[in-house]
Amino acid sequence: MTELLFWLDIFGTVVFALSGALMAGRFKLDPFGVIVLAAVTAIGGGTIRDIILDAPVFWLANSYYLWVICLTALLTILFIRRPKRIPTRFLLIADAFGLALFAVVGTEKALSLGAPIPAAVVLGTITGVAGGMIRDVLCNVIPLILRQEIYATAAMLGSSLFALLSWYGQDHTLTLIAAILTTLLLRLAAIYWRVSLPAFHIRDKDNDS
Amino acid sequence: MTELLFWLDIFGTVVFALSGALMAGRFKLDPFGVIVLAAVTAIGGGTIRDIILDAPVFWLANSYYLWVICLTALLTILFIRRPKRIPTRFLLIADAFGLALFAVVGTEKALSLGAPIPAAVVLGTITGVAGGMIRDVLCNVIPLILRQEIYATAAMLGSSLFALLSWYGQDHTLTLIAAILTTLLLRLAAIYWRVSLPAFHIRDKDNDS
Amino acid sequence: MTELLFWLDIFGTVVFALSGALMAGRFKLDPFGVIVLAAVTAIGGGTIRDIILDAPVFWLANSYYLWVICLTALLTILFIRRPKRIPTRFLLIADAFGLALFAVVGTEKALSLGAPIPAAVVLGTITGVAGGMIRDVLCNVIPLILRQEIYATAAMLGSSLFALLSWYGQDHTLTLIAAILTTLLLRLAAIYWRVSLPAFHIRDKDNDS
Repeated sequence: MTELLFWLDIFGTVVFALSGALMAGRFKLDPFGVIVLAAVTAIGGGTIRDIILDAPVFWLANSYYLWVICLTALLTILFIRRPKRIPTRFLLIADAFGLALFAVVGTEKALSLGAPIPAAVVLGTITGVAGGMIRDVLCNVIPLILRQEIYATAAMLGSSLFALLSWYGQDHTLTLIAAILTTLLLRLAAIYWRVSLPAFHIRDKDNDS
Repeated sequence: MTELLFWLDIFGTVVFALSGALMAGRFKLDPFGVIVLAAVTAIGGGTIRDIILDAPVFWLANSYYLWVICLTALLTILFIRRPKRIPTRFLLIADAFGLALFAVVGTEKALSLGAPIPAAVVLGTITGVAGGMIRDVLCNVIPLILRQEIYATAAMLGSSLFALLSWYGQDHTLTLIAAILTTLLLRLAAIYWRVSLPAFHIRDKDNDS
Repeated sequence: MTELLFWLDIFGTVVFALSGALMAGRFKLDPFGVIVLAAVTAIGGGTIRDIILDAPVFWLANSYYLWVICLTALLTILFIRRPKRIPTRFLLIADAFGLALFAVVGTEKALSLGAPIPAAVVLGTITGVAGGMIRDVLCNVIPLILRQEIYATAAMLGSSLFALLSWYGQDHTLTLIAAILTTLLLRLAAIYWRVSLPAFHIRDKDNDS
């Protein structure tokens, strides 16, 4: 079980590092810049979660997270080269995998460290969305969380689902996989079919009359 | 007394959550996106304060902050509907209340946890401005703190006033209320009459010649 | 030795506060806004480093950092006045000094607190780049780290050089100075001759065809 969590966490790290490296490729960063953006995306959310929980920050003692990020960044540079064009969608899909994995794994960690359910859901959501948020803010791109498509929604629902199923004492592995798949499918559906919930919209009196 | 602090803190949470939800309404977010933006605005500053103080993050044990934010976000969505137009000013006023309350309450918490006066003023200012800053940065809007109008100024003056009056052993409740009102009136005056201090301005040699 | 570290740290604080104040001058902030932007730039990186290390935040107990920042901001306002024009380059050079000093001093602090080498390099890089990053993000300016010129690269190489030389038991003072000078020269060379490493570039299938 703990082994499953470990590999899910590593996989989340790889896909978020990939999404950061791909974004770096759009801004023509040099290799070290690519590593920085990959690292920020991959460890940003979990770092904030651990700091809020006052737990030891996960990559401080376990350096292999940093090596995984370096390796992912370098492989991205090597194999995704200039002439080859990558659709935006590829970045979105890598981001979706990271979102689903980290939202659920983050909720698990918060619960296991004794956080109450509402706080655990918030911390899971932070783990899932914060890395990508920082990536987007640094690149001056409108953060995915501000798009109409299901994004924060998927993270919060997946995180809540995990917290509730855990609360009702469901099997841990099954709960984990169910919550991750739910989050991932919600988000992928939103990307492919541009599904979105009804939006809350206020027009601005000062701007349009 | 502690009860007064409690209610001021809750009121600050409500008005900042409202300002975040109103901003979300401009960007046509779905309900979960509204909740995320309301939460970031309402708990961002206090979270950073508590982390720097190495105190337990306030909403981790006390889930009611999160429920207050959810409720505020949902009520905003329900009652401030599409056809009704909200002036920018309403968002600014909600933000001004949050700024005044959180700057002073944040200073109080920092002092009560043993921070020296200069650090307490900085932490109070952070509590007041950081949530709104993150809201504005996420929405790619120029942060209020970068406008010429009295904003950081109000927070720093209110926070300093509270620290000084406390230092001179003035009545706690009175000090609290005086500092909050001072901050609020400074900021509201700046909004209504567009008052500002003389600005520091450097022209850029490379850009205009 | 510890004295040298202390003065390097103060000098880094002054130059980063200067770079923040100069940036504030472009946005016509009032004096308190200048102080806030100077402070964010000067203490942002070290604050994040200390929080991740779970060490007491450096400016909490030692208020003189805050006074140094206030003083730098006020002197900048007094002596760099409106009619006098400052080239962008001056801001870049102040930033380069801060980057070099903080990246190396940050690595030293992380190592001395027991962080493993890879984490220490990451923390040194964060100390060097995060303050300037927050300054740029708040001002809605493309962060320096996202430019093609050697920036993150200089910080990471200087930080790694310090970690490696320390690991091989080289003289502490010499190591410190060598690493700072390397970082500084790399960055200044990049500014003057617009040197850069080959960039990683992906074109976007959806945008250009």
